[in-house]
Amino acid sequence: MSQAIAPEKNGSVPYEQSRLYSLRHSAAHLMAQAITELYPGVKLSIGPPIENGFYYDVDLDEPIKESDLTAIEKKMKELAKLDQAITCKKAQDREDAKRIILEDCTLGQGEHTAEYKLQLLDAIPDGDDIIFYEQGRTDRAGNKHYFIDLCRGPHLPTTKEIKYFKLMSIAGAYWRGNVNNKQLTRIYGTAFETQEELDNYLYVLEEAKKRDHRILGKQLGLFMFSQRVGSGLPLWLPKGTTLRETLTDYLKKEQLERGYQGVITPNIASSKLYEKSGHIITYKDKMFPFMEDEDNNTFILKPMNCPFHIEIFANALRSYKELPIRLAEFGTVYRFEQSGELAGILRARGFTQDDAHLFVTPEQLEEEFIGVVKLTMDVLKKLGLTNYRARVGTRDPNDTKYVGGDENWKLAQEAIENACKSMDMDYDVSEGDAAFYGPKLDLIIKDALGREWQMGTIQVDYNLPERFELEYIGEDGNPHRPIMIHRAPFGSLERMIGLLTEHYSGAFPFWMSPVQIAIIPIADRHIEYAEKLKKDFKEYRISIDSRRETLGKKIRENQIQKVPVMLIVGDKDIENNTVGVRSREDGDKGAISIDSLKEFLESV
Amino acid sequence: MSQAIAPEKNGSVPYEQSRLYSLRHSAAHLMAQAITELYPGVKLSIGPPIENGFYYDVDLDEPIKESDLTAIEKKMKELAKLDQAITCKKAQDREDAKRIILEDCTLGQGEHTAEYKLQLLDAIPDGDDIIFYEQGRTDRAGNKHYFIDLCRGPHLPTTKEIKYFKLMSIAGAYWRGNVNNKQLTRIYGTAFETQEELDNYLYVLEEAKKRDHRILGKQLGLFMFSQRVGSGLPLWLPKGTTLRETLTDYLKKEQLERGYQGVITPNIASSKLYEKSGHIITYKDKMFPFMEDEDNNTFILKPMNCPFHIEIFANALRSYKELPIRLAEFGTVYRFEQSGELAGILRARGFTQDDAHLFVTPEQLEEEFIGVVKLTMDVLKKLGLTNYRARVGTRDPNDTKYVGGDENWKLAQEAIENACKSMDMDYDVSEGDAAFYGPKLDLIIKDALGREWQMGTIQVDYNLPERFELEYIGEDGNPHRPIMIHRAPFGSLERMIGLLTEHYSGAFPFWMSPVQIAIIPIADRHIEYAEKLKKDFKEYRISIDSRRETLGKKIRENQIQKVPVMLIVGDKDIENNTVGVRSREDGDKGAISIDSLKEFLESV
Repeated sequence: MSQAIAPEKNGSVPYEQSRLYSLRHSAAHLMAQAITELYPGVKLSIGPPIENGFYYDVDLDEPIKESDLTAIEKKMKELAKLDQAITCKKAQDREDAKRIILEDCTLGQGEHTAEYKLQLLDAIPDGDDIIFYEQGRTDRAGNKHYFIDLCRGPHLPTTKEIKYFKLMSIAGAYWRGNVNNKQLTRIYGTAFETQEELDNYLYVLEEAKKRDHRILGKQLGLFMFSQRVGSGLPLWLPKGTTLRETLTDYLKKEQLERGYQGVITPNIASSKLYEKSGHIITYKDKMFPFMEDEDNNTFILKPMNCPFHIEIFANALRSYKELPIRLAEFGTVYRFEQSGELAGILRARGFTQDDAHLFVTPEQLEEEFIGVVKLTMDVLKKLGLTNYRARVGTRDPNDTKYVGGDENWKLAQEAIENACKSMDMDYDVSEGDAAFYGPKLDLIIKDALGREWQMGTIQVDYNLPERFELEYIGEDGNPHRPIMIHRAPFGSLERMIGLLTEHYSGAFPFWMSPVQIAIIPIADRHIEYAEKLKKDFKEYRISIDSRRETLGKKIRENQIQKVPVMLIVGDKDIENNTVGVRSREDGDKGAISIDSLKEFLESV
Repeated sequence: MSQAIAPEKNGSVPYEQSRLYSLRHSAAHLMAQAITELYPGVKLSIGPPIENGFYYDVDLDEPIKESDLTAIEKKMKELAKLDQAITCKKAQDREDAKRIILEDCTLGQGEHTAEYKLQLLDAIPDGDDIIFYEQGRTDRAGNKHYFIDLCRGPHLPTTKEIKYFKLMSIAGAYWRGNVNNKQLTRIYGTAFETQEELDNYLYVLEEAKKRDHRILGKQLGLFMFSQRVGSGLPLWLPKGTTLRETLTDYLKKEQLERGYQGVITPNIASSKLYEKSGHIITYKDKMFPFMEDEDNNTFILKPMNCPFHIEIFANALRSYKELPIRLAEFGTVYRFEQSGELAGILRARGFTQDDAHLFVTPEQLEEEFIGVVKLTMDVLKKLGLTNYRARVGTRDPNDTKYVGGDENWKLAQEAIENACKSMDMDYDVSEGDAAFYGPKLDLIIKDALGREWQMGTIQVDYNLPERFELEYIGEDGNPHRPIMIHRAPFGSLERMIGLLTEHYSGAFPFWMSPVQIAIIPIADRHIEYAEKLKKDFKEYRISIDSRRETLGKKIRENQIQKVPVMLIVGDKDIENNTVGVRSREDGDKGAISIDSLKEFLESV
């Protein structure tokens, strides 16, 4: 899930200011209260809301197991129902705060349990308000419940409103994230406003686990990793390669028809190239270690294709008559992601971008931008990703970091918005979301599980043409600077195939399936007929499963491989010139003639 | 020319033992004699025969120019005709040799002219014979001519036999190749046994210069180099990319039909991979500098694809039923060639191999080898490279460096020879030419200029399966070691396209031409018709030259671009539904109907 972004309600307040955020924060306190009752003497540290829920880091005398979470959850439910008011309490000064921590927060378990809270207090700058949130009530049986925590809030008014929550998992976490400190126990939970939302979240989690592209990628023979090759460096297996090349061929054809020109550039370059582009400073963190030869020449593994395409543009004197020039490359780049951030092929260290750079005149910007948006939409439609929204990233009017001039920014922003309008595409404007070198359009895809993925960014760039002093001769005979558009409808083949694998749960549409048809001869004497069939339908990717296994086993295994169409052939089929059709979606469709098969396959 | 190998007469003695070698050596002496007469006081250093001729390094008081070579050549002709006997003279001892150098070799020009020869004498180990060759005669006018040189020979018996020679060029060369020493003048020449051979050599040189792929590559827009990207790292321009992808697509299709499976692997790997393969020791010189991260992980830019394909093989438990497994990849590799060895795309630092590795059982070796030879021959035929010879590289029976066992080597060598025989292909056996890990077959292509190129090596490998402990489960239920075959019919796309460019002088066959058809509308009012034509013939790669230039200029420029077919369209063509056809090979073919055009294009 790490690559999917949390669904965001259009037009709503940011998550950090939402009621849901407060709810999860209060749920974290509620969990901490439950833990103090179940594990007296526990030392609490911190417990914030996070993207999909909340956690609390606690220091327990003895370790707890995931199975203990049920009891904590039960206790939380009891405490919630008590309708404890959650109220804010401001310490008069640092001394007062210290007293509250040592007397109230410790709940009578001794001052040593306040260890982490005292350190947190120390970290609060002088002059800042020191705030606590407390909750408590005596239940019907006369038992007193109380909890108070050093906390900036905000919270819900009462625990009664914390209804739909679930504790998820346990992990280790070092105090203050420092490996030299003590390892605490982190307990993760989640909470929602309604049962339906909680159920949906848990369903998506469960479903996402089943659809995990790493598991499906192995099961379907798409790709592999090898320790000897290294983390984050996928090796594409035959079926994955076929899928990848099917996508590549499709996009190449689309691009050719739209006037793109293919180029191929090296995977390395002299450091001079990245000095000129500025990446050696702005992007160094993401670059692989440099290669230095004995003569002090430095080579860099390419993290992006743009400077190469610029070198190609700059290789000849360009006239306005040649523009727009659209250079496209399926370019493999390498980025030194931290190993903790790697996630199968969704986030890898080596990946192939379906990259292109358009060099355009200011007059061409809008039309070319529209062309790119149209291509991107056509690509997403072809891939079956039809649920998406658009976001225009513009300048922060209070920031001065931007290059390119006011007039240009206005022009580009209008071009982007006009492109959206002309395409009847709804969009939000996200102020301050632009890169320093130009405004952009993001398409945010919602997958079959409702998870959102930022894909298909289209970026206007005033910076690189400036840095490389690019020019074309205008109609007026004078040199002018072109504008660049960066775009990659897939993003990268790796990320898109990872997403498609999870979106389709491995059951790829017919046109992109690595094996489109599995012909299953019932016995050896039917193999010849199977091979004739394969030849007659050679426009499809067909495998013949001629193993000496039972028909049932062969069908089952091709089902696991999610092959869209199985053709089962036996004596009667040879006699009647038919095939038994089994569709991945509709199951057994019975015997049909070869002519009907042609029609059927065209309709799949 | 650096990548083409010298044509070799089959069955003849090695060049170093040939009469041609002695002839060139004697020609070098003759040139030195001529120089001593024209430039008295010249200091001679060394003058050996080389691959295509000979040179002499001389130390002159004032520099000479290429135009001075004519006079030297004329003097050589005079001296040759004198029929000077060339005789060997052995010095009695080192003292005697020193005397000969100081007295005879200096030709009365003073002892300082013997500077280099004395140093050469010093370099002769004690106990070795010290040999001179001398020649001399008094001409009809009574002038004495004499020359003697410290030299191991052998030489022709008389200068009279040096008839067909030419001085070629002048270059600088440091004494003993050391930049700290004095720079001498190197004069290059060549000599042959017959006028015809000399003429042919000069013609090929001249023609090769015109066909130089670096010049044509620029002129035809195939590829470029950039100082900011680095030496030996080509960037493929749109037309070169189209040509390259046309070749790639063709081979991919051929391979798919022959049961190959495509894979895609990263351009880098952990050093662990190359430790396992052994390349980190045997191949380090050719590897780019390593990339080391802060945690001491080392990454290596891949110099070859084999270890990756092995990881894919080893990724699953393999049964004999799955074998042969044929993994193919258009894999881009990087090798750190010395900058002096780089030659356009013929020898680059980054290139893409049309690589494949076959994992076979011993029983399958012969059949699979035949399959590979057949594929290679089909590919070469398709490329129009039909003039080649085969060479089987076998073990040196006196060497013990080989791995894999006698029985296996016998099996493999028989498989290779049987493959040649079954293909009716003549072959030589080159004993000792095998790699330490297995025997091989080389195909040596002769290009349009008669230059030979070693391409299409097919290599049997017993070593890597052993190092990686590869296994498959045999029919007997026990693990067995597979044999690997390495092959690459193109060698690399770069080298093959470089060769094809020179072979065809840029006039590529119709099927691989980046632009197959240029439609030239005579005036703007014919553009619409041109565009309709383009659509109707969309299976071809068509450009429309709608520039407002004269017809003559447009035809000329498309000729320079070596476009195979031009279609010129004007008023009459629109009226009569015709096109004016101009073929690259046959020139103007007049107006033909659209139907006839279809036929014509199918026949090109």
